[in-house]
Amino acid sequence: MAGEKGEQLKLVGQWGSAFVTRVKLALELKGLNYESVEEDLRNKSELLLRSNPVHNAVPVLIHSGNPICESQIILQYIDEAFAGVGGTPLLPADPYQRSVARFWAAYIEDKLVVPWDRVFRARTDEERNEALRQMSAAVEALEGGLEDCSKGKRFFGGDSVGYVDVVLGGAASYAKAHEPLFGAKLFDAARTPRLAAWLERFCELDAARAVLQDVNRVVQYGRMLIAKNSARPSNN
Amino acid sequence: MAGEKGEQLKLVGQWGSAFVTRVKLALELKGLNYESVEEDLRNKSELLLRSNPVHNAVPVLIHSGNPICESQIILQYIDEAFAGVGGTPLLPADPYQRSVARFWAAYIEDKLVVPWDRVFRARTDEERNEALRQMSAAVEALEGGLEDCSKGKRFFGGDSVGYVDVVLGGAASYAKAHEPLFGAKLFDAARTPRLAAWLERFCELDAARAVLQDVNRVVQYGRMLIAKNSARPSNN
Repeated sequence: MAGEKGEQLKLVGQWGSAFVTRVKLALELKGLNYESVEEDLRNKSELLLRSNPVHNAVPVLIHSGNPICESQIILQYIDEAFAGVGGTPLLPADPYQRSVARFWAAYIEDKLVVPWDRVFRARTDEERNEALRQMSAAVEALEGGLEDCSKGKRFFGGDSVGYVDVVLGGAASYAKAHEPLFGAKLFDAARTPRLAAWLERFCELDAARAVLQDVNRVVQYGRMLIAKNSARPSNN
Repeated sequence: MAGEKGEQLKLVGQWGSAFVTRVKLALELKGLNYESVEEDLRNKSELLLRSNPVHNAVPVLIHSGNPICESQIILQYIDEAFAGVGGTPLLPADPYQRSVARFWAAYIEDKLVVPWDRVFRARTDEERNEALRQMSAAVEALEGGLEDCSKGKRFFGGDSVGYVDVVLGGAASYAKAHEPLFGAKLFDAARTPRLAAWLERFCELDAARAVLQDVNRVVQYGRMLIAKNSARPSNN
């Protein structure tokens, strides 16, 4: 399969990764065809090790032989390399609005996704609860960020989905798996009504339906990760 | 004072911050005039709290009343908002080369600057030595990154300084202060000859001479931070 430019696009990924899902969402929104290569992260392929020798991590997008690493960098690459292709750009045209989108994308990465990852990797209940508490604080600030970006419109990107939507939306199935896994909604309709409505709206998009993981499968996967990491010996 | 577009540019910063220095370097390289507002970070101004209510941190660039936060986002803003102004763009035009520059900028941030910050904030010698060890490993990988970006030319950006040069160059005085502070060069001519030569070359630029902190002042400041944080009580 090939991108609309007739050049080969290959995505090296893993089904459970929210970072990989971001890239799939962007490719889907742009209407780009690509070959999806599923990695076994316990036994990494030569292709992955050669394409991302610094981090050995997914996702990697390979475009006409050139490997692009790290999900947010890949999103910007897709926006820039396929600027003329169908679908609205992920980032707005105005430099100030671009900086606002980048700000909230960085916020999601540093303040929400990092503790989210730690929730699954925690060795003790105490560590997990501290990470859940950090996530909860980040979600409240992000509710303000949604207003800051969207100005009351449907998505962070305004009337159509944009960069911040895709960055957060990559974790949409994990957001939905939060209640079965941890007993409370991540985006609660009473506490963060805008984000709760955003999540439902985002999951109804054709691109989201095509790409997002099955929530039950994520719940099972999450339980497996929590059990595995809780049993890890401490390094301390 | 005003930017070349005749619009007001104000930089809210603090002299010792490598993040603020990045922004000063970019403004200097673009030949933009700006007002520099020095913050007392122990007693933050109303202007800072209002301009960056989420992080309350420097740098903030205020352009015609719009606040832009976070140094790498500000650098990209300067590149995009002042694209027509003198000086070569920080990021290259080619999407793939842009992704390579963003990759190494993210590497510097996550793998070098985060432990660098920890070196000064460590409460124990053990914590400090572990952070120094992480920095040392990052520097070796970055030596390869310099080759990856520059293709044997003078700077990460090629023949002229670019995005990665400015991201790393913001910490140039700290790199020079490393030996007096910690007894070993950060960029050693035997171990990482490309980075050692890069540092000397970077510091000779007019923009660097105009902006970089005095190394002796950084050494004194670093000693003060180390002494202050070593005396902090542990949270554990």
